[in-house]
Amino acid sequence: MIRRLHVGPRLSEAAIAHGVIHLAGQVPENHPEGDIAAQTREVLGHVERLLAECGSDKSRLLSVQIFLADIADIAAMNAVWDAWVVPGATPPRATVQAALADPRWRIEVVVTALQAEEQAR
Amino acid sequence: MIRRLHVGPRLSEAAIAHGVIHLAGQVPENHPEGDIAAQTREVLGHVERLLAECGSDKSRLLSVQIFLADIADIAAMNAVWDAWVVPGATPPRATVQAALADPRWRIEVVVTALQAEEQAR
Amino acid sequence: MIRRLHVGPRLSEAAIAHGVIHLAGQVPENHPEGDIAAQTREVLGHVERLLAECGSDKSRLLSVQIFLADIADIAAMNAVWDAWVVPGATPPRATVQAALADPRWRIEVVVTALQAEEQAR
Repeated sequence: MIRRLHVGPRLSEAAIAHGVIHLAGQVPENHPEGDIAAQTREVLGHVERLLAECGSDKSRLLSVQIFLADIADIAAMNAVWDAWVVPGATPPRATVQAALADPRWRIEVVVTALQAEEQAR
Repeated sequence: MIRRLHVGPRLSEAAIAHGVIHLAGQVPENHPEGDIAAQTREVLGHVERLLAECGSDKSRLLSVQIFLADIADIAAMNAVWDAWVVPGATPPRATVQAALADPRWRIEVVVTALQAEEQAR
Repeated sequence: MIRRLHVGPRLSEAAIAHGVIHLAGQVPENHPEGDIAAQTREVLGHVERLLAECGSDKSRLLSVQIFLADIADIAAMNAVWDAWVVPGATPPRATVQAALADPRWRIEVVVTALQAEEQAR
């Protein structure tokens, strides 16, 4: 009844039940040296790739929680975000400041989304 | 399959799927100069109004995440909260400290709730 | 349509709808004097007990949000976590730093999980 993707010993990158997808917190693990814009692009790319694997896409986001290591990064993050979201299908979102597991990471994003109908059956 | 309310270019205030409502983080945007009690009242008012638009109400909360800019505000926030919740229908809740997007905001609240049955059909 | 457990005047420890369980933030309220390992064990014990009451278990976690008062505790927290999770059924997880309601608490954990099939009917 639960489908999990990229199952590791500590966490899975995704869990799906009743057509609802829960993603692990996505972080800029590939390029932690990037600035907030680059890190945001990387993280949203992880979200997009995982949603595709789960049979969904960024037009089907249900909720997004964004943690920024420095809330002062919000304008630069929003510039990347605004260009990424699908007009007319933007999700509920909350953005707060929180120190993250790696001090180089400036952003972590937690997403829930809905599977496409043909996948949810 | 997803119904969205108050859809903006950056986020929507609500997304509904399978009868479950996800609200954006609600903040005291109208009266950011208020103290924690006034800000909490404003934010819970936003929640109540949005839930009504979604075909639900505060007796049907599924989970609530509260972020306080200063965790020392928790007692004053709780006084407003305790008077607002429906006895016998209080939700699971978590409250932690986090700096918020506007330095005047002392509280942000993220809610999920269930639609009333006649709405969910 | 919503079943709630341990309903208090401020919050409930669990709310269940459509087979999905939402737990309140679990904290080391019994032994706040413990170190991060002891506090993590206590909190995960609370999660396990509540999931059992809800007709679920730690193999059916859908998402986990961990707040640490000091993100430097993550390695010691992970050591307890890694021994607790069910291999092959690890959940999506996000871990960030946040000050908690009691300054002695070093960890708070927010969980969603799926009921077992026979319970969800």
